[in-house]
Amino acid sequence: MRVVECVPNFSEGRRPEVIEAIVAQAKGVPGVTVLDVNPDHDHNRVVVTFIGEPQAVSEAAFRCCRKASELIDLNVHQGEHPRMGATDVIPFVPLGEVTMEECVELASALGERIARELSIPVYLYERAARIPERQNLADVRRGEFEGIRDTIMEPERRPDFGEAKLHPTAGITAVGARPPLVAFNVNLDTDNLKLAKRIAKRVRESGGGFKAVKALGVMLGERNLAQVSMNMVDFTVTGLLPVYEAIKAYAAEAGVGIVGSEIIGLLPMQAMLDVAVEALKVESFEIAQVLETHLRGK
Amino acid sequence: MRVVECVPNFSEGRRPEVIEAIVAQAKGVPGVTVLDVNPDHDHNRVVVTFIGEPQAVSEAAFRCCRKASELIDLNVHQGEHPRMGATDVIPFVPLGEVTMEECVELASALGERIARELSIPVYLYERAARIPERQNLADVRRGEFEGIRDTIMEPERRPDFGEAKLHPTAGITAVGARPPLVAFNVNLDTDNLKLAKRIAKRVRESGGGFKAVKALGVMLGERNLAQVSMNMVDFTVTGLLPVYEAIKAYAAEAGVGIVGSEIIGLLPMQAMLDVAVEALKVESFEIAQVLETHLRGK
Repeated sequence: MRVVECVPNFSEGRRPEVIEAIVAQAKGVPGVTVLDVNPDHDHNRVVVTFIGEPQAVSEAAFRCCRKASELIDLNVHQGEHPRMGATDVIPFVPLGEVTMEECVELASALGERIARELSIPVYLYERAARIPERQNLADVRRGEFEGIRDTIMEPERRPDFGEAKLHPTAGITAVGARPPLVAFNVNLDTDNLKLAKRIAKRVRESGGGFKAVKALGVMLGERNLAQVSMNMVDFTVTGLLPVYEAIKAYAAEAGVGIVGSEIIGLLPMQAMLDVAVEALKVESFEIAQVLETHLRGK
Repeated sequence: MRVVECVPNFSEGRRPEVIEAIVAQAKGVPGVTVLDVNPDHDHNRVVVTFIGEPQAVSEAAFRCCRKASELIDLNVHQGEHPRMGATDVIPFVPLGEVTMEECVELASALGERIARELSIPVYLYERAARIPERQNLADVRRGEFEGIRDTIMEPERRPDFGEAKLHPTAGITAVGARPPLVAFNVNLDTDNLKLAKRIAKRVRESGGGFKAVKALGVMLGERNLAQVSMNMVDFTVTGLLPVYEAIKAYAAEAGVGIVGSEIIGLLPMQAMLDVAVEALKVESFEIAQVLETHLRGK
């Protein structure tokens, strides 16, 4: 199964006709499925999610970017979310048998094409970054559209593709590759929010816990349960099961059980396969053993 | 994801050109993927596995059946495996979001079509059976080609579709629906074959253990390990995790650990999702949360 997810962000969250025109570009590419369109009025920004074969997804991202450059003018754009381009970011996410390296190549090729065909300069970010300072998107976007106009000529701010000069209306775009993100929550059988916060701190990377795990303790108001709410930012580094088991053990230390867990939204099949393989101690398992991966065209 | 698996058995395991001609019929249907072709010389029989959208898979099964009726003559067929038709059995297996009920309907429609267009009478078997005596394939096939020729006029042996008269060369075909089968083995950290046999007896249905589980204790010669070797004949009745956990507990009673497990061949995505959901105690999970299920055409 050769599938890539793409989650581009465009600097338009208020004009539905502009959002529709951009999304229509992705829908028009054969083999691309648009999974979600999530506009935010205050951010004045829309997050679009689509999947498909790598080349089809790249083509869809290009066409969306071209349409956004025709319809969005950063000179008159305002919103709460930082932004530097009509198409602000284009991250590619590997799924199925596609590797991160392939997504990095996809990002490079698309970045080069955007600069060449649309005259929009491009930064490569996250896993696609060619210099360490561009791994973190917040650093890449520092100064935003208005600020980068002045700094882009500086050696350390020169784009990876295109001239050191913003597109007059579409600004500059970051193209990158990153692992899929899984939103995973564990509900404790208690209303003790402090316990959830303490456990969250123990499991998250910033607290010295699991790598690639972000965690917070929150209250589920309706059910009056304390929850450890997590973003698993790279399930290939830390999977769901070891974190679940750790939370269960930490809660047990306080005499508290687990009510259950929640997986919010979509996740790659591999994240679930990894849990099953670990729970059953399967000695060797290939994604190709899953019947559905053999459907033609995958 | 609307996917059905079909695993027809044809009464030819020795003439490669005949097998190829039959399989080519399935490959010629758009949207159908042939996963496996497994001929057996002694049985003089071939098992073919393909998947795809329900209607495409049914069309492929029909074309294979038609081709087999042109190329195979049961009057001159000999082999160790019992058989009653050129196309002996056609089971449909639901995958993804397809239900067993849909596969039963698919079996009925195909059975009617085979009788009408090819003049081959059809028995409906397993979950598609309309009378309880036809749930078990061995009962349906009793007497084989030569015997059923004489008994088919009897009220209890009349076919579900077509006249009470065998096709002169292609015989009679059984069309049915059944759950997918998962081959699952657990390796014990011991060379004690008796322990593996004892555990196998405790977990299998015939020993009073889990429903829809068949199990044997065997030796893994090369590794000198005792293994509980299982067929999970309906993972929606008994999933892999509870059986694994039971084997682990029974082995622990004898002071023996688990080395690991093996999943042989292919299995439906849902069988692995069920394990992950159970291991993580996910409160509600839909197969539609798996990104890959949204690929266009699924």
